[in-house]
Amino acid sequence: MAEHSPASARTTVRRGAPRAVYERDRIRDVLDAGIVAHVGVQTDDGPIVLPMAYGVRGSGGDAELLLHGALANALLRAGRGLDVCATVTIVDGLVVARSPFHNSMNHRSVVVRGIASAVEGDAERLDALRIINDHVAAIWDTARPPSASELRRTLVLSVPLAEASSKVRDGDPVDDDSDLDGPHWAGVVPLVASWGEPMAASDLRAGASLPDAVAGLAGTDAHRR
Amino acid sequence: MAEHSPASARTTVRRGAPRAVYERDRIRDVLDAGIVAHVGVQTDDGPIVLPMAYGVRGSGGDAELLLHGALANALLRAGRGLDVCATVTIVDGLVVARSPFHNSMNHRSVVVRGIASAVEGDAERLDALRIINDHVAAIWDTARPPSASELRRTLVLSVPLAEASSKVRDGDPVDDDSDLDGPHWAGVVPLVASWGEPMAASDLRAGASLPDAVAGLAGTDAHRR
Repeated sequence: MAEHSPASARTTVRRGAPRAVYERDRIRDVLDAGIVAHVGVQTDDGPIVLPMAYGVRGSGGDAELLLHGALANALLRAGRGLDVCATVTIVDGLVVARSPFHNSMNHRSVVVRGIASAVEGDAERLDALRIINDHVAAIWDTARPPSASELRRTLVLSVPLAEASSKVRDGDPVDDDSDLDGPHWAGVVPLVASWGEPMAASDLRAGASLPDAVAGLAGTDAHRR
Repeated sequence: MAEHSPASARTTVRRGAPRAVYERDRIRDVLDAGIVAHVGVQTDDGPIVLPMAYGVRGSGGDAELLLHGALANALLRAGRGLDVCATVTIVDGLVVARSPFHNSMNHRSVVVRGIASAVEGDAERLDALRIINDHVAAIWDTARPPSASELRRTLVLSVPLAEASSKVRDGDPVDDDSDLDGPHWAGVVPLVASWGEPMAASDLRAGASLPDAVAGLAGTDAHRR
């Protein structure tokens, strides 16, 4: 993954460069705090972007973004390589400026570009699925292990985190000096996503106990600020 | 926008078809409840997906998705038409199944595909910017109106809502019958995004009063369930 400079010209954040950060830890923090990735691929009839569950495996130069979801199949259908862009965005607040020109949203985002490849081998795929399923909460170990047939039917994609960039926008609006003495309000309205109380399935049998990892989500900030 | 059938073959939701809905109202409801769109475009060096602020203008067959953000420029640089995919996703909960194979997320999403064009003309662009700025809350009228130069420097894209599809996943996990009597827990952990109390900018002058539209956000569900 990129160290203190862009990993490649194409992952350089061209706008808002002062806010752009390339440090490995920051990129990992945003990926850890996100819930879904929006994955884009070019198909025969134009680009398509779909939300996918994800996880991160490994660290440093070997780190990879693991993707699971409907798009995996669309990707393989596209048939012109698996060049993807996976973007994770967390909106932290609405930035209300004195001039609409400076309105914005506080956010954390990571853009990963690279060639997606299918994770091969039962053991590799099992490990990848565990990481994806445990991304939000560690629910893998308390579930019924996947069957061989479930594993066969599950497609997991891996994208190297070699080309990743992160952008963070935080704090107050930045208005023009000429507007500071004007009558217009300026500030930020924070946005917080919180997990609620777990709701048991209507067909849950008596005796099936709530896993600690699920119970522990209740009331927590879903984006780990 | 699509009525009761897919607007085009390529916007047919190929997986999870039972959950796919094409009704115009449902698509509009999801777009109204979302905050950012993830917009994908094919560039000379592969697909790129970036978050953008958006709004919806018009209704029926004339409805259009209005986009504003960094990608607008990237789009125009791409130079191979402005074929885009704009996807809005709201995650409503974590679906914990007995088998990880059936783990999922409750969500509402809309996928819009089409040719993006720049909104031309000051009056048209002013109207488009008002709609985008007012998407989360009606903050346009209480701000300083944009100057001619701000307006000139602002690029707004319009994508017709003719090719849009919506997908909603809600409710309990759907496990295999053979798992229902097992010992594993199943249920949903709701995710709720709420606006917090507005925080005035540190450089806010005395006498600048908090607009009602901003004050009204505090404590509300950001995704309008």
